[in-house]
Amino acid sequence: MGVALPRKEMFDIPEGVIYLDGNSLGVLPIGAAERATEVIRDEWGGQLIKAWNTAGWMALPTEVGDRIAGLIGAPAGSVATGDTLSIKVYQALAAALKMRPNRRVILSDNGNFPSDLYMAEGLIKTIDKGYALRTPAPEDVLAEITEEVAVVMLTQVDYRTGRMHDMDAITRAAHAAGAVMIWDLAHSAGAVPVDISACNAEFAVGCTYKYLNGGPGAPAFIYARPDITLDLEPALSGWLGHAAPFAMEQAYRPAMSTERLRVGTPSIVQLSILQEALKVWEGVDMADLRAASIALSETFIHEVEARCPTLTLASPRDAARRGSQVSFAFEHGYPAMQALIARGVIGDFRAPNIMRFGFTPLYLDQAEIVRAAEVIEDVINNEVWRDPKYHARSRVT
Amino acid sequence: MGVALPRKEMFDIPEGVIYLDGNSLGVLPIGAAERATEVIRDEWGGQLIKAWNTAGWMALPTEVGDRIAGLIGAPAGSVATGDTLSIKVYQALAAALKMRPNRRVILSDNGNFPSDLYMAEGLIKTIDKGYALRTPAPEDVLAEITEEVAVVMLTQVDYRTGRMHDMDAITRAAHAAGAVMIWDLAHSAGAVPVDISACNAEFAVGCTYKYLNGGPGAPAFIYARPDITLDLEPALSGWLGHAAPFAMEQAYRPAMSTERLRVGTPSIVQLSILQEALKVWEGVDMADLRAASIALSETFIHEVEARCPTLTLASPRDAARRGSQVSFAFEHGYPAMQALIARGVIGDFRAPNIMRFGFTPLYLDQAEIVRAAEVIEDVINNEVWRDPKYHARSRVT
Repeated sequence: MGVALPRKEMFDIPEGVIYLDGNSLGVLPIGAAERATEVIRDEWGGQLIKAWNTAGWMALPTEVGDRIAGLIGAPAGSVATGDTLSIKVYQALAAALKMRPNRRVILSDNGNFPSDLYMAEGLIKTIDKGYALRTPAPEDVLAEITEEVAVVMLTQVDYRTGRMHDMDAITRAAHAAGAVMIWDLAHSAGAVPVDISACNAEFAVGCTYKYLNGGPGAPAFIYARPDITLDLEPALSGWLGHAAPFAMEQAYRPAMSTERLRVGTPSIVQLSILQEALKVWEGVDMADLRAASIALSETFIHEVEARCPTLTLASPRDAARRGSQVSFAFEHGYPAMQALIARGVIGDFRAPNIMRFGFTPLYLDQAEIVRAAEVIEDVINNEVWRDPKYHARSRVT
Repeated sequence: MGVALPRKEMFDIPEGVIYLDGNSLGVLPIGAAERATEVIRDEWGGQLIKAWNTAGWMALPTEVGDRIAGLIGAPAGSVATGDTLSIKVYQALAAALKMRPNRRVILSDNGNFPSDLYMAEGLIKTIDKGYALRTPAPEDVLAEITEEVAVVMLTQVDYRTGRMHDMDAITRAAHAAGAVMIWDLAHSAGAVPVDISACNAEFAVGCTYKYLNGGPGAPAFIYARPDITLDLEPALSGWLGHAAPFAMEQAYRPAMSTERLRVGTPSIVQLSILQEALKVWEGVDMADLRAASIALSETFIHEVEARCPTLTLASPRDAARRGSQVSFAFEHGYPAMQALIARGVIGDFRAPNIMRFGFTPLYLDQAEIVRAAEVIEDVINNEVWRDPKYHARSRVT
């Protein structure tokens, strides 16, 4: 049994807001702003270049990686942090393809986050040796895992619908066919229990600004299974993945650890904020978190369906097949979401018609979910969304 | 004529420190910590996901890119920001190689920053089609530019010695041989006048935590010559380089602008600090800056050579062939630098024997340079560096 949830006192959330978008950008943890000020004023300003040693900046990426490792069932030392998730996808995929030099198929699915597919496309064009990217429907992935497949690359939790792949079953099938497995945990880390070691996948990648509350542009992470690490050939072989970065050798010699998956100079301010943000996980039992997440989302589905017959559930009804989010399809989803946001119920919209709501048991309770459903009822049933002011298109939500 | 230099009042520098390492990590601009707090508390904490629109986060990478463009003689809209410099090197090189599909040689030099060479190595192994990386001595580069060469990739100012390549002459030679030119401006941007448009190189890349004072881990930048932008094939084709990132299309379709060289979610906190830091350049005339930089470094060379005959100048004596740093070779350079740092004169050490001093006319004056030379005289001539406490090896300086 872990600490009691929610732990609202550890976050700074605006009054009157019911935040159901922690699956896109997590909220501000108490202490994050203070930590940033400390890093900027005392470490950068006060210690200048010396801070790389005196303030522990050199060790920061690994320390943060170890904290993330603890949340995804990975051993200490197996997670490298830095860059963006797209870059980490590219790294994992490039390294995985090198492990299966005689195969030419990358298998993903058409529910994967577009950037993962785009990065695969870019890598395929860069290598230019006839690789193919296959993207069947998520439910057809298992059947498509053949002995042609070099790499299976999937996002566990679908960013639009919350549909969750069975990591263990798919990884087993990939391995049975001789393929390498890469899991994108963008909507999993901090959202659902993950045991990447038990799953036995070769790689996992993820971002930290969603359920891990690292802030806008927080660095990404990459996990490599310890037994393969020392054989990995880094495509993005930057100096901070070198065995001896400050020896300034002419030739690349990869670090004899997961650090070979680091690339350039780490974003110290953002990493420090993330390090602070990860403290809220101390004492949290992921099984408790999952139970609370399911309770919140079940309440939400029940309340919204009872009130709004024009909304269609776009997520799996079975909680076991769903991540920590619930989506409803609605033709006028875009203006409806703008109207909700104007009323303090913040979710987001994903084209073409998905209204997306994320559940973060660290800072949400049941009463808020019921209240959110009431606001949704008002916006949908009273057609509040018809107001022209909710139809102006912005770029993000 | 621009504003008067130095502008010390715009920076927060510790009392008693003479900072000659702005070529490694620039100092803290006044306002940077406040800006970070504002972004974290008011924008992230207060506006949450909406801040991508309401706080202008979506536009931030381009706005910052435009400010950098102004410092390197590039037109607005031609500089993309984000990632690390190593990633930007990879992007430029991968795109450049695609522009010369029938050539197989990448020409750099053995004075280039190792990470640039490492990234080229990684790309060569990833493509695996017999590309060769040649690294002659810097003075032999011009002679090595042949019609075999696909890309010439050089850092203008040598990170160890400050030796400066003639960008115009080398770019002309590269183009005459049919090669694509990439300049790494890591030690140039904010240090020496750069006119990338006049130089006519296809690409430039750089970092912003040195002379641009963006803070530890500040994002990098990449310039592409406007006439080639729409033909570039991005190897790192992330969603924020897509023509319509939020349309969530399955296939990559590059933005019809320099934004195609963006990759993943931008590091908003670090970008905001950088944006604030770039304000100190308002009104600065780069010719004035260069004149002040030369005056500081000439004083430094004169004072140090007059006092310390055991130090050997490792930088070009001709100021016109030198960037904004001066290096001395000294067998005991490592402990000597530690002793200097302990006395408040902060430079850095680069293996095997280089004591490196950077000159940043924005916040250094002549009196500090003379004072620094006095401290160096004491440390070298009185063999203060023999004290065992200065011999412990740390990872960075």
